[in-house]
Amino acid sequence: MQTELDSYFNSIIENVNLEIRKFVRSDIKTLEEASLHLFSAGGKRLRPLVLVSSSDLIGGDRQRAYKAAASVEILHTFTLVHDDIMDRDYLRRGLPTVHVKWGEPMAILAGDYLHAKAFEVLNESLKGLDAETFYKAFSLFVKSIEIISEGQAMDMMFENRDDVTEDEYIEMIKKKTAMLFSCSAGLGAIINKANDEVIENLLQYGLNLGISFQIVDDILGIIADEKELGKPVYSDIREGKKTILVIKTLREAKESERKIILSVLGNKDAKKDELEKVAEIIREYSLKYAYDLAEKYSDLAIRNLSKIPVSNETAEKALKYLAQFTIKRRK
Amino acid sequence: MQTELDSYFNSIIENVNLEIRKFVRSDIKTLEEASLHLFSAGGKRLRPLVLVSSSDLIGGDRQRAYKAAASVEILHTFTLVHDDIMDRDYLRRGLPTVHVKWGEPMAILAGDYLHAKAFEVLNESLKGLDAETFYKAFSLFVKSIEIISEGQAMDMMFENRDDVTEDEYIEMIKKKTAMLFSCSAGLGAIINKANDEVIENLLQYGLNLGISFQIVDDILGIIADEKELGKPVYSDIREGKKTILVIKTLREAKESERKIILSVLGNKDAKKDELEKVAEIIREYSLKYAYDLAEKYSDLAIRNLSKIPVSNETAEKALKYLAQFTIKRRK
Repeated sequence: MQTELDSYFNSIIENVNLEIRKFVRSDIKTLEEASLHLFSAGGKRLRPLVLVSSSDLIGGDRQRAYKAAASVEILHTFTLVHDDIMDRDYLRRGLPTVHVKWGEPMAILAGDYLHAKAFEVLNESLKGLDAETFYKAFSLFVKSIEIISEGQAMDMMFENRDDVTEDEYIEMIKKKTAMLFSCSAGLGAIINKANDEVIENLLQYGLNLGISFQIVDDILGIIADEKELGKPVYSDIREGKKTILVIKTLREAKESERKIILSVLGNKDAKKDELEKVAEIIREYSLKYAYDLAEKYSDLAIRNLSKIPVSNETAEKALKYLAQFTIKRRK
Repeated sequence: MQTELDSYFNSIIENVNLEIRKFVRSDIKTLEEASLHLFSAGGKRLRPLVLVSSSDLIGGDRQRAYKAAASVEILHTFTLVHDDIMDRDYLRRGLPTVHVKWGEPMAILAGDYLHAKAFEVLNESLKGLDAETFYKAFSLFVKSIEIISEGQAMDMMFENRDDVTEDEYIEMIKKKTAMLFSCSAGLGAIINKANDEVIENLLQYGLNLGISFQIVDDILGIIADEKELGKPVYSDIREGKKTILVIKTLREAKESERKIILSVLGNKDAKKDELEKVAEIIREYSLKYAYDLAEKYSDLAIRNLSKIPVSNETAEKALKYLAQFTIKRRK
């Protein structure tokens, strides 16, 4: 079973990578290199897998799905390049981030270039379809980017607050992260002219999977090995990010522990042992809680799936596996 | 005659501003304020005027043109927000730039938000049209943004070179500036399903107008009054920009003058009197040459116009006036 899915996933990733390489080109070589940097560095290609599997699930057109999948991965990569500047992160996928390697101006530009490329590839993926589908697909795509920007703004503004609630956190990660998974699954349906109910169920599947994914991302930020993760551990604490783990811990920890946490959270000069101490307290109070919450959303995603008539059983297995993988992953 | 055009232009600007205000909204108020900042600060709305006049010229749909015009103005504003970060400019339209007022992370984000909004508004402007027009309009739009990014990259890379040629300069400003004027005029035709010859002539009109516009922009950067211009004078010299004026002067100045220029050009710590001295030399060698060149492209733009069958004479006058205004303007 695992091998069936492995080859299913690998074939999608290979084809999507080909599309990405085909489109992300420029005569200005520095711009091209900076734009391609994060793709070459690896990445799990989860959003393309969600998109193509969603398209397969309802018996869709593979070539079209590869292009649409390339467009969401390019879009995702644009957000990573700019987020890394905003969050001052220096490591991503085990490599220096784009702004560290090429400087901030070129990184801003490479992000903008990828942003436009994402639209170009989406436009190509729609070629030959009717006007209504063009309109629907672009609407979902722009709405997603706008919502992602809002989510990133919330995430940054939360750094300056100590009273962020769990509801606010969920609202923020829905926007910042889950929306693009939702868009990926939804596009898989839209490019195949699926009916509104199928589109809606896939949008919901992606949203719930995305929420689960971000919760686990926040967990990995305080338990993972830096080398395995490919990005700095504890940087969320240093930046004062209000993750579900921090929110839960601030709510339940003893006053003395709260004080320690608040003195280190968002402190750019925090020392390694201070970060380690705070991470230890957070793990104690919130790890199980956060995992349970992630599992809840993963289950919801699988339930959304069960409402859709299945044309391709491998694709169904794949989408289930992806919803569960969000929790099991170690990076 | 001037009053006829005044009221023609004012009505376009009012309607386009309404569309911009309708679309650039967000529940995240900081993001909305940062995104709206440069619109409130003024701006000439030249690209919307070019687009709507082009649409009128061939008897097009005004409401659709207002939306498409809003989308290019939003796109233009996104590039200004990001360019100001990249070029470290602190003043624009007489106000602090977005990154100065809200910080770099929020400015990057506001630019991204506007970038997506531009696509949203374009999508809305196309609603009800056929799939081929959707594809054509989005193709031109994404191509324009990609080319603009390439132009901005070239502009930055030229800062580190002293041997940039006039041809390279023209190639760079075609990309950085003229492409969006070309896109504006071309979209005015595409949204009205004009034939390919009309589209091509309007694309060329916009391109030539845009080249003329950027040459004059570079001229104003060394002759204008900072207060009237609304942005820092001589910043091009401080940043080491290879404008046509600098290229021409480096080619013709005496060796002693060349030395002075090269010692100040791109020197971030250059003093005001040094900048003034260099500007004086540049003015002496290149001002007439640059104005003549701008006029050549303005004439070419008007010649492109003469090849198009006219449905609306006011629009024709307007487009001629815009091509001439690029030269006469003082800001």
